[in-house]
Amino acid sequence: MRLGLRLKSAFMKKASIVNIGNELLNGQTVSTNTAYLGEKLLSIGIPAVSSYIITDDIDSIVRAFNLAADDADIILATGGLGPTDDDLTREAMAKFLNKELQLQDELLQKIKDFFTSRERQMPEKNKVQAYIPAGAKAIANNLGTAPGIMAEANDKLLIALPGVPLEMKQMFEESVLPKLKRLATGQAVEIRKLKCFGTGESNIAELLGPLMQRGRNPLINCTADCGVITLTIIATAEDENKAVRMAERDEKSLRDKLGELIYGTGEQGLAEVVGEKLAQQKKTLAVAESCTGGTLAKLLTNIAGASKYFTYGWITYSNNAKTTELGIPADLIEKYGAVSEQVAQAMAKGARKKASTDFAIAITGIAGPAGASEQKPVGLVYISVDSDNGCDTKHQLFFGDREPIQLRAAQTALNMLRLRLKN
Amino acid sequence: MRLGLRLKSAFMKKASIVNIGNELLNGQTVSTNTAYLGEKLLSIGIPAVSSYIITDDIDSIVRAFNLAADDADIILATGGLGPTDDDLTREAMAKFLNKELQLQDELLQKIKDFFTSRERQMPEKNKVQAYIPAGAKAIANNLGTAPGIMAEANDKLLIALPGVPLEMKQMFEESVLPKLKRLATGQAVEIRKLKCFGTGESNIAELLGPLMQRGRNPLINCTADCGVITLTIIATAEDENKAVRMAERDEKSLRDKLGELIYGTGEQGLAEVVGEKLAQQKKTLAVAESCTGGTLAKLLTNIAGASKYFTYGWITYSNNAKTTELGIPADLIEKYGAVSEQVAQAMAKGARKKASTDFAIAITGIAGPAGASEQKPVGLVYISVDSDNGCDTKHQLFFGDREPIQLRAAQTALNMLRLRLKN
Repeated sequence: MRLGLRLKSAFMKKASIVNIGNELLNGQTVSTNTAYLGEKLLSIGIPAVSSYIITDDIDSIVRAFNLAADDADIILATGGLGPTDDDLTREAMAKFLNKELQLQDELLQKIKDFFTSRERQMPEKNKVQAYIPAGAKAIANNLGTAPGIMAEANDKLLIALPGVPLEMKQMFEESVLPKLKRLATGQAVEIRKLKCFGTGESNIAELLGPLMQRGRNPLINCTADCGVITLTIIATAEDENKAVRMAERDEKSLRDKLGELIYGTGEQGLAEVVGEKLAQQKKTLAVAESCTGGTLAKLLTNIAGASKYFTYGWITYSNNAKTTELGIPADLIEKYGAVSEQVAQAMAKGARKKASTDFAIAITGIAGPAGASEQKPVGLVYISVDSDNGCDTKHQLFFGDREPIQLRAAQTALNMLRLRLKN
Repeated sequence: MRLGLRLKSAFMKKASIVNIGNELLNGQTVSTNTAYLGEKLLSIGIPAVSSYIITDDIDSIVRAFNLAADDADIILATGGLGPTDDDLTREAMAKFLNKELQLQDELLQKIKDFFTSRERQMPEKNKVQAYIPAGAKAIANNLGTAPGIMAEANDKLLIALPGVPLEMKQMFEESVLPKLKRLATGQAVEIRKLKCFGTGESNIAELLGPLMQRGRNPLINCTADCGVITLTIIATAEDENKAVRMAERDEKSLRDKLGELIYGTGEQGLAEVVGEKLAQQKKTLAVAESCTGGTLAKLLTNIAGASKYFTYGWITYSNNAKTTELGIPADLIEKYGAVSEQVAQAMAKGARKKASTDFAIAITGIAGPAGASEQKPVGLVYISVDSDNGCDTKHQLFFGDREPIQLRAAQTALNMLRLRLKN
């Protein structure tokens, strides 16, 4: 995503993110907090302009706070608030602020209560978590023992949160975001995401043409992940109403140009959208998977409430299973091969008949690395969707390793069903 | 992982990682390069001591290079080597090194060849990728158009690689790692990972006692992810032989203390280990899943060659499916409920009988958020493993959201089978 310099300078407040922990630098943990906080901050008009990842070392932390303060008005630190000796964010914060750490009785009681509620006594080690720099405020943590800390100094706002993403996110959204929203008096930003499936990035870029120009406001940005293309509209304006109107106008243009390539918004997955349609239309679905080995069923059943529409699934991994479970004649498999249009169709029809559902999806292919022939390369997949309106079959050649091939095949199957469910 | 300061100072060379790109700061992309490079560097005795994430801005990049040079001997930069106007790493590098950018004819030809091999002409834009600072060396990129750049200045080594992980990793391993290995003349480091399943982190810590002490060498570190506990042994010594011996000794101690809790090494998953055992013992497996909805089958079929042992899978998501597909009497479900020991057993037995396999696993439970009752809370799961030696059933209460419950239940089932396969 490219926020041109012109746009950037229009923002009144900027943020810098400091991630603290040896585990982030030795390969043990991928730091996801910067990406999460960066998006949340941008959505309220406070762009993150830098991020520092540093070890559990007090001088390094203080140095990073100083560097971040050079870059930005708001410093968001994560990590180093635990109870062990290498959790040094509290001390570094006190040093940076030039204040003493003080025991907060109320905080200590909360930490003791946390253990009591789990029928345990607070280990002595955890007492250190009740200390915060003089003049700072604690931020409640309902999921763990480490409180966050918020302090102001020299026009800078320094906020420290735990490194555990679950705790950090909950505390950020509940206690930090509302406060930052009030600070972000500069520009309003409206962010919208449209999710597409069924074509490539370069085709989308061609279809959208000048809409995707750099430096344009709203900015329209495009990323691809396993066939799903996400278009992000970022509209920046003096006030919220204008930003919303600008984003709405662009969303409409995108919908006009992309039509049914767009399957959803925000963070929606194909399985979620397909599930909603099935539930709304009170239709049921069965699946029969060979090369995807459960990937499609897993995508469907990851959605809460899937039992409303998803009833039966088969993973007919062996040819025998295709015959005994879905009634596919052994000589059909013999004649055309398990990876063929004929077998995909027979699987879908067999599954729908046995499950008595409105729809059935079948997938058979070669996920690799073995199993390929000259006629049937790794990545070749046949997908059938059967319903009262007949059986559609398509084949596609997917590239990549085994797991991406399985995932793309399952997603393509979901997309075929989505397009069927429209009518 | 905690590399105490005492250990750290024993390393002769240190590294700092600079990640360049607006998309890393606005939430669009999680930067995984630091974690990858951090682990690779540590494995050759060059710890990463800091990492900077910055926007596509030339002054910010130069500043980050200077900060990284304060921290470390080796600066590894990723990103900003593309052909567009906001790819500024080349220019920033030239500015940092105080050198001119020079067109490399050989590099230009390679980029042209890249397009020719894809039956396209090189867009004029890409010419910029053939410029590198005077005196620097290009690093070949076989997967894309952006070459890497390596330059030395004032005893610092500056290496720039593309931000795309696939390209970056390939170039790092092929061209950078061998060179860095020769530089890392200080300490040898041996890293080993043991994977455990079947108990919690605190129990592991208790069993290992002083072995997990901080500052100890080898350092033993513990992380948990969805029930899988990874113990990392990091042995540091003057020479490689000694480091290997130290790591070996600790690995033996861990194996003595943890016994069959350890299921594998390195990056092995439970499905891979179970699959290897099944293949070795020439045994076959069928699965019948209810609440996990394909999660177990997917774990098994993600492994290449799974068709050797995995033949049949059912996702009997509805009660009807349990009856028609696995022959479970409707009155058994009526009497005990679909989430019960009796139904789990009947599913496993039914699946094994229909598939004629050596083993069958069945899972039934409540993945949530709906479907719970007072007697049967969200997260309650029954798992049965059936074989000629009888049918074992266990139930467990898993915590968390729908997907983690499904994953933990499937992993627990795999672990039950692993322990059965030992004998």
